[in-house]
Amino acid sequence: MSVIASWIYLIDIVGTFVFAISGALAASEKRFDIFGAGILALVTAVGGGTLRDVLIGSTPVGWMKDLNYLAVIVAAVLISFFFKHHILKLRRTMFLFDTIGIGLFTILGLQKTLALGLSPVIAILMGAVSAVFGGVLRDVLSNEVPLIFRKEIYATACLAGGLFFVLFQWIWPAPVINMLAGIAVVITIRALAVRRHWSLPVIR
Amino acid sequence: MSVIASWIYLIDIVGTFVFAISGALAASEKRFDIFGAGILALVTAVGGGTLRDVLIGSTPVGWMKDLNYLAVIVAAVLISFFFKHHILKLRRTMFLFDTIGIGLFTILGLQKTLALGLSPVIAILMGAVSAVFGGVLRDVLSNEVPLIFRKEIYATACLAGGLFFVLFQWIWPAPVINMLAGIAVVITIRALAVRRHWSLPVIR
Amino acid sequence: MSVIASWIYLIDIVGTFVFAISGALAASEKRFDIFGAGILALVTAVGGGTLRDVLIGSTPVGWMKDLNYLAVIVAAVLISFFFKHHILKLRRTMFLFDTIGIGLFTILGLQKTLALGLSPVIAILMGAVSAVFGGVLRDVLSNEVPLIFRKEIYATACLAGGLFFVLFQWIWPAPVINMLAGIAVVITIRALAVRRHWSLPVIR
Repeated sequence: MSVIASWIYLIDIVGTFVFAISGALAASEKRFDIFGAGILALVTAVGGGTLRDVLIGSTPVGWMKDLNYLAVIVAAVLISFFFKHHILKLRRTMFLFDTIGIGLFTILGLQKTLALGLSPVIAILMGAVSAVFGGVLRDVLSNEVPLIFRKEIYATACLAGGLFFVLFQWIWPAPVINMLAGIAVVITIRALAVRRHWSLPVIR
Repeated sequence: MSVIASWIYLIDIVGTFVFAISGALAASEKRFDIFGAGILALVTAVGGGTLRDVLIGSTPVGWMKDLNYLAVIVAAVLISFFFKHHILKLRRTMFLFDTIGIGLFTILGLQKTLALGLSPVIAILMGAVSAVFGGVLRDVLSNEVPLIFRKEIYATACLAGGLFFVLFQWIWPAPVINMLAGIAVVITIRALAVRRHWSLPVIR
Repeated sequence: MSVIASWIYLIDIVGTFVFAISGALAASEKRFDIFGAGILALVTAVGGGTLRDVLIGSTPVGWMKDLNYLAVIVAAVLISFFFKHHILKLRRTMFLFDTIGIGLFTILGLQKTLALGLSPVIAILMGAVSAVFGGVLRDVLSNEVPLIFRKEIYATACLAGGLFFVLFQWIWPAPVINMLAGIAVVITIRALAVRRHWSLPVIR
């Protein structure tokens, strides 16, 4: 189990790093200065989990208790600053880690909510909030309409992965396997959605 | 008293439903997909109470503890999706419940704040926040300047109703009657404001 | 010490007042009504400290426990409303108190975070959040790209002042002197930055 916990932690950190890069690049497009880029990277990387923690009452919020999160965010901003062109070439790798990160953030956020005794329905919702609200806050702070409100079935993939995890934990409690399977569901739906240009219907 | 409590709960749920419809319709105008509409409906319906709960430290926030709120919000999104044209015809009925909802949310938010031992002044403010901040968050997420900052004396009606309730509770403590009277004050001011095109002065 | 505490409290209140004036003036430019101006003044004045309190879990948030903050904010809105032209002439004085306020808010926010047992790194960050996020929230609610993401090394001055305070407290614990010195660092960097048009580099 401790090996698995280490892997989970590592992926969590790498996911945070990739999210932070995406925030720093968004700041770069808006011509924010390096401080603004730092804030946007921080908000993108930990904003979803922060909102979840504030709503469920788990404060001080998570990233304040482990400085590694802040460290990789600072590293991400510096790397974006000095090696922007190299990063843009790594788009495909970034997309991979971004997608894995979203899957992991969903299940971790879900588990944290369940652990506080809240309903599985709320836990699935908070899992998705953990994964996607960093991007929403990034867009609001950049004065853009949040991307996920209009494109991709990003958040829906998280809800589906969370639902899968909760159902299988109920039928057959095997946390690690169900976690991996839940993450796989998120990744699969998202990758298919991007490849096949799936989108959700609009209210007309 | 339990009959009254049931009525309060029912109006609370109906108010939440009507607020959620207004969020879903706003999403429709912005051409958000159905997931975006769900988020906007959720934020509009429970955003004010959520902000109040976070500020006064009553977490997990209210709607997480009673799934009926989430259920009527999901219902509101589905109904907006399938019956948008019918809903638009019910504008007058919607306005009625919206106004009653605002009145009730104000007094309930106020009472919750008082119950935590905070000052009546803060409680009146938090009552108004409960009632109007869902709409503010809806506008911020839609990348609009919040409507209430420019139009109607919406929030002022809530502050007046809250002040009325606090004063009469102090003079003559009769929670249910003062509550109904406070809600009536909110409704009256708002209805008059809309009918007579009242507005607050602007700083020039 | 109690004399010093009184001075700190007085500067805190004056800083809150000046921040509230800046919020009310921003509302005036956007032609918000007086209620909108009140909200924007409130958010500008106490938004940074409120965000800090919510993130570190110190709720009910600070300004709810001492009505003097609310009182000076209301006063600031009324004064902005009736004497806008006089205020605009006092720009230089306002800038002075605004800068002193930012310095003080930084150190007070830092100390509050440290007192909860969080790491000095987090405390420095929360000090800066206390000082600058009121302005960020003001800009988001006015539907503007937050100014500090693009201009001045405003927040950097706060981080530097906070770092200075933490380092000197570690080397030579003398809270009052280190506090004054930390505030002086914030003021100096900010004044120099404005005068010499310093700015941070942009990611290209």
